[in-house]
Amino acid sequence: MSSTLLEPSTTAHDLPAMLPSVEWITDTARVARLSQDFAWFSPILKRDLAGKTGDVVARPRSEEEIRQVVSACAIAKIPLTIRGTGTGNYGQSTPLFGGVILDLSGYNAFCWVRSQVGRAQAGIRLSEFDAQARPHGMELRWLPSTFRSATLGGLFGGGFGGAGSINYGPLAAPGNVLGVRVMTVEPEPQIVELRGADAMLLHHTYGTNGIVLELEVALSPCVPWSECVAQFESFDQALEFASKLTKAPGLIKKEVSFLAAPIPTYMAPLMPLFNDKQHAVMMVLAPQSVEGVEDLVKSFGGVFCYNKTAEEVLSSNRTLIEYTWNHTTLHALKVDKNFTYIQSGFTPAKHVEQVKALEKELGGEVLMHLEFLRTKEGDFNCSGLQLIHYTSEARLNEIMAIYRSHGVQINNPHVYIVEDGKQNNLDPAVVKMKERFDPMGLLNPGKLRSWASREVRH
Amino acid sequence: MSSTLLEPSTTAHDLPAMLPSVEWITDTARVARLSQDFAWFSPILKRDLAGKTGDVVARPRSEEEIRQVVSACAIAKIPLTIRGTGTGNYGQSTPLFGGVILDLSGYNAFCWVRSQVGRAQAGIRLSEFDAQARPHGMELRWLPSTFRSATLGGLFGGGFGGAGSINYGPLAAPGNVLGVRVMTVEPEPQIVELRGADAMLLHHTYGTNGIVLELEVALSPCVPWSECVAQFESFDQALEFASKLTKAPGLIKKEVSFLAAPIPTYMAPLMPLFNDKQHAVMMVLAPQSVEGVEDLVKSFGGVFCYNKTAEEVLSSNRTLIEYTWNHTTLHALKVDKNFTYIQSGFTPAKHVEQVKALEKELGGEVLMHLEFLRTKEGDFNCSGLQLIHYTSEARLNEIMAIYRSHGVQINNPHVYIVEDGKQNNLDPAVVKMKERFDPMGLLNPGKLRSWASREVRH
Repeated sequence: MSSTLLEPSTTAHDLPAMLPSVEWITDTARVARLSQDFAWFSPILKRDLAGKTGDVVARPRSEEEIRQVVSACAIAKIPLTIRGTGTGNYGQSTPLFGGVILDLSGYNAFCWVRSQVGRAQAGIRLSEFDAQARPHGMELRWLPSTFRSATLGGLFGGGFGGAGSINYGPLAAPGNVLGVRVMTVEPEPQIVELRGADAMLLHHTYGTNGIVLELEVALSPCVPWSECVAQFESFDQALEFASKLTKAPGLIKKEVSFLAAPIPTYMAPLMPLFNDKQHAVMMVLAPQSVEGVEDLVKSFGGVFCYNKTAEEVLSSNRTLIEYTWNHTTLHALKVDKNFTYIQSGFTPAKHVEQVKALEKELGGEVLMHLEFLRTKEGDFNCSGLQLIHYTSEARLNEIMAIYRSHGVQINNPHVYIVEDGKQNNLDPAVVKMKERFDPMGLLNPGKLRSWASREVRH
Repeated sequence: MSSTLLEPSTTAHDLPAMLPSVEWITDTARVARLSQDFAWFSPILKRDLAGKTGDVVARPRSEEEIRQVVSACAIAKIPLTIRGTGTGNYGQSTPLFGGVILDLSGYNAFCWVRSQVGRAQAGIRLSEFDAQARPHGMELRWLPSTFRSATLGGLFGGGFGGAGSINYGPLAAPGNVLGVRVMTVEPEPQIVELRGADAMLLHHTYGTNGIVLELEVALSPCVPWSECVAQFESFDQALEFASKLTKAPGLIKKEVSFLAAPIPTYMAPLMPLFNDKQHAVMMVLAPQSVEGVEDLVKSFGGVFCYNKTAEEVLSSNRTLIEYTWNHTTLHALKVDKNFTYIQSGFTPAKHVEQVKALEKELGGEVLMHLEFLRTKEGDFNCSGLQLIHYTSEARLNEIMAIYRSHGVQINNPHVYIVEDGKQNNLDPAVVKMKERFDPMGLLNPGKLRSWASREVRH
């Protein structure tokens, strides 16, 4: 589209008529809904993001349609916010200053599997990716609890990992995401393929420094995963079991999730099995490891109380993965709207002791929910998504301060600015990427604080 | 065979005539050869085991033939020493008091692969096991450098692991070996299936506490492994690279072997690429990780100097795995007969610093060769098979003492008694197993010292 076709005063509302071949959503209520994600888990974000909405939503189905929308926005200087299916928790797809929401969920083709690598368009759902990869004997390395609807592009843009991070670490670990195809936000959008570390500069920036069109990811050989639960009377033994299993090199798992009492009683599959004093470790295990894990559970005084084969999981259409990570929070919120949560990163090798100390200090008010994983560097660790009986913002901040005083890192889920979720440790190269891929700063302006305050070098 | 058929004075030499359906080897030179393994790597073991030989070798091909030989030995109280293909290094198959060598290399059928588990008879070669498992999309979790000829039973009886231990730890890690079928040494031999931890009580006891007939092991999905080498001018950077790669969760490897200068110049595939000041890290990598590892090599100032795909490895019939672990020692010995070696277990998380300190203290005399791996508990670590310019037994002991003074554990490869290779930390349950499976103490008498000195409870 040449710039002469656009009136200087073109707004987002004018675009649907100008680009009629693209699918547009203009109904105010639907646009408002498509401006949101699961930020409502946080009472603070719910308040802070209230009323923030796009003007229209574009749902392109081809690279050419994306190009048309992007070009038009660049020419008319209309803000552009990229969206997948809205399963994020920090307002990733909420436009801070209106404009066009670029919903990529319709740009969702599976490209290929070659050897142990797969490639797909950004809008593909993770469940669909896995379904396409499985006939090749491959599966995704990580499944967030939202895998059923979450998109690959959205996971890359604002996700961490999920089930599977216990083996492969977060997406951010080198070797997981091999390359991305990126479009620039310019009147004449350019297409660039980034590989390795360069590609990762667009990761977890909430779509603020480039439009990721396709992703190439390393895969993992398919395993017919069993889903199991161990029950413990003792908090410490459950915790130590989970930590031991996480490290055990001969016992193959995809997920180890620790739910302190009474959280198991909030989770539908566990409700009939648990009383409110019992702790659960939910596990996704390779079938050949179930026997060995059962022995390990016993040696920690636990009871192996739930054991479903991959076939049973498939036919029941119920997977424990949808009770882990932030789905634990979701299910707890269904039981008690007054819950909120924090995200905490413990210190490898000290994590078990840190958890015990914090349980002693805050038990009852803060309900321990831990996801065991490997860090980007490969250390064994756990990450907390603790449930909190919410009283006030002041008390929530106090709790986070107590965590920090124990040497635990808080990844605050009650903020929506990219830098605030990263303790203000933003790699300056992220901003340089934005100079390259979004030189006019149109991608959700305000979301990447460093953009406005940068020293402009060009 | 009923005991009345045997004269009380029956010796091993009488058995071939009594059991003519079994294959026997009686030629003195061949029996002497089949009484040995690779203990000659150690000048001390070479001296200590000199002249120790069996009387005859039985090579049974069925459980029934094994039963006949075992029964006859039990009735006549003839010592019985189990042998695979003799690739061990500590006189595992050398009878200390003559008798029958039970060579199980002919008892080698592959049983089955089900889901991700495989089962075979003890005498199967590891290479043959992998060839049988591959059409099922599976492979063994570990390949010692001797995989071409070593047997599964021999690996279980006296091996550690090998390539693959960087993922799955040693065989000893729970979940690796799932079960074993064992025969008792009695006039009427019994057959028992042991599972899990019970099975592991027969592991690494050099065949002294039961005759393992079949093994059931957890497998790993097949990967078309690439073989690569990185070259470094700096010892420290090579070491740090190897340690970083070992932990990196997104970069998939089966083997990481560090060879300090000038060891690479002793290894045929590396000779043309290395001068005697350059250090090598040999790697077996998943193809989708090669790109990421190449980036990592560069970031440590190294050069990616060798890169073969799985197809190239297969068609060349040369694998780097046969230059790792104790094959490194073998190739160095071919260049200089005066080399010997030690085996050292570093301390997880401190291993890199320990290696640097010992290199500073002993560099030149002790050539650093490290195999990166995970411990039984899953910690990242490395194990040393350092090459030593041998001068005297006293100096060798001094070097081992220096290692110990740095907090490094020495697994002395210059001893042949089970307990001496385990710092005398033998689980008493191992001896109880021998009471159950070899109540008359006929399995290579003298090899398990605790047997003679035990308190007999029955």
